[in-house]
Amino acid sequence: MYKDSNLRTILKTISWRITATTTTATLVYLFTGQLQTAIEVGLLEMGAKMLFYYLHERMWDKMMFGRVEVPAFVLWITGIPRSGKTTLGDMVETRLKDEKLKIQRLDSHDVRPLFPETGFSRDEVNNHIKRVGHLASMMEKNGIITIASFVSPFTESREFVRSICRNYVEVYLKTTPDHVRKYETDDIYDKAKRGLVHNVPGVDVEYEASEKTELVIDMTSLSLEEASEKLIKYIKKNLI
Amino acid sequence: MYKDSNLRTILKTISWRITATTTTATLVYLFTGQLQTAIEVGLLEMGAKMLFYYLHERMWDKMMFGRVEVPAFVLWITGIPRSGKTTLGDMVETRLKDEKLKIQRLDSHDVRPLFPETGFSRDEVNNHIKRVGHLASMMEKNGIITIASFVSPFTESREFVRSICRNYVEVYLKTTPDHVRKYETDDIYDKAKRGLVHNVPGVDVEYEASEKTELVIDMTSLSLEEASEKLIKYIKKNLI
Repeated sequence: MYKDSNLRTILKTISWRITATTTTATLVYLFTGQLQTAIEVGLLEMGAKMLFYYLHERMWDKMMFGRVEVPAFVLWITGIPRSGKTTLGDMVETRLKDEKLKIQRLDSHDVRPLFPETGFSRDEVNNHIKRVGHLASMMEKNGIITIASFVSPFTESREFVRSICRNYVEVYLKTTPDHVRKYETDDIYDKAKRGLVHNVPGVDVEYEASEKTELVIDMTSLSLEEASEKLIKYIKKNLI
Repeated sequence: MYKDSNLRTILKTISWRITATTTTATLVYLFTGQLQTAIEVGLLEMGAKMLFYYLHERMWDKMMFGRVEVPAFVLWITGIPRSGKTTLGDMVETRLKDEKLKIQRLDSHDVRPLFPETGFSRDEVNNHIKRVGHLASMMEKNGIITIASFVSPFTESREFVRSICRNYVEVYLKTTPDHVRKYETDDIYDKAKRGLVHNVPGVDVEYEASEKTELVIDMTSLSLEEASEKLIKYIKKNLI
C-alpha cells in the first residue's frame, strides 16, 4: 500500500499554490483595478492557503475512500520446453515495470528448486502447477500482477489455476521440438528421443492445448521480439 | 497499488474549495471593505479553481514520486500444537485490517493440505517451513504484511526464514502440553504419549526455543485476549 510522503505533499502544495494564487491575484486586479490590493491579497492568501492545503492533503492521505486498487491479473505462459517462456516472461516484466506496475515473476527455474522431491510424472506435475496456482492467486488477490512461466502441459492443472484466479490469462507459445532444437544447450529433446529422459512434453508426453487459451503465439514464425510486442499489445489492450 | 478514483478527486476538490474560497472572500472583504466584490471574486474563483484543482490532482495521481510503500513485515507465530497460534494470528489480522493495512494470513491448516505428501519428520518439516518462508518473503517484498502461524519447532528453518525476509519478527507462544490439553479436541498429546502419533513437538520432539525470538508470550499465564493485546501493542510500537 502507498502513502504520500511529506515531500510529495510539500511539492504538491507549491505547484498548486502557484496556479491558485496567480488566479486569485488576477481576479482581484480585474475586479478592483488596483494592482497593490491584488498583490497584497495574493501574498496573504499564499501564506494562509499553503498551510491549509498542506493540512488538507495530510488529512486526505489518511483516508482510504476512493483509493482503488489497480486490478491485477495472472499471466500464465505455457508451452513445451525451450519455447521461450522465461525470456518472454522477463521481457514483459521489464516493460510493465516501466509503467510502474507491481509485478511478481514466477518462473519454473526458480520455483522447482524449492520442491526438489517433486518429479515429472503427470500427477506430480499437476500437483506442482496447482500449488504454483495457489501462490499466483494469492499474489493477484493482493493486487500484484503475476507473470508465471511454466511448461504446464496438462489442461487439468491449468484449468484449476484458472478457476482459482480472478483474472487468469493463458498465453500458449506454440512451437515444435524440431523448431526449438536450434536454441538447445543441453539438447533435452535429443535425450528424450533416445529414451535417456522421460516425461518431456512434445516428445513422450503430449502437450495438451486448450480452446480456452486467451492468446496463442506461433513461435515458429515470430522472433522473440515480435512475440513480446504481440503479447504487450494484448496486455495493454485487454488488461491495463 | 492504489490510484485515486475520480469520485475521490471530486470530493477532495469540493472540500478544498470550501476551505479556500472562504479564505479568499474574507481576505478580499478585509482589504476592500466591499462585500459585493468579495462575493463576486469568490464565485468566479470557485468555478475557475475547481477546474484547475481537479486537473492538478489528476496529474499528480499519475506520478509515483513521493508515494512511499507502507513497510511490510513478516510476523511469524510459533509454538507447540494447540498453543493458540491460529487464533492469535486471526485476532491480529482482524485488528490490523481495521487499520486499513494489507495483510496476508498464512496458516499451517491452510498450507499443509497443498502439500499432502509432506510428512512430519525433521527434514520434511524444515523443508516445508523454508518453502512457506519463501512465500512469506515474496509477499513482504511486495509490501504485504504477512502473518504466519506454524508450529515450526526447529531453529534451523525459522532462522532460514528470518534470513530471507527483510523484517522478520518471531513471536513464540510459550506453553506446555499439560497446560494446552484443556483446549484439546482430538487430544494429540494423549495420542503422542501413548505412541499412537509421532513427531509431536513438546512430546517426542523438542521445541527449539531461540534467543533471537523478538517476543515470547507466556500462554500459561495470559488469556488469548491478553496475549492478543500484548502482541498488538508490540506491533504498534515496533512495526507500524
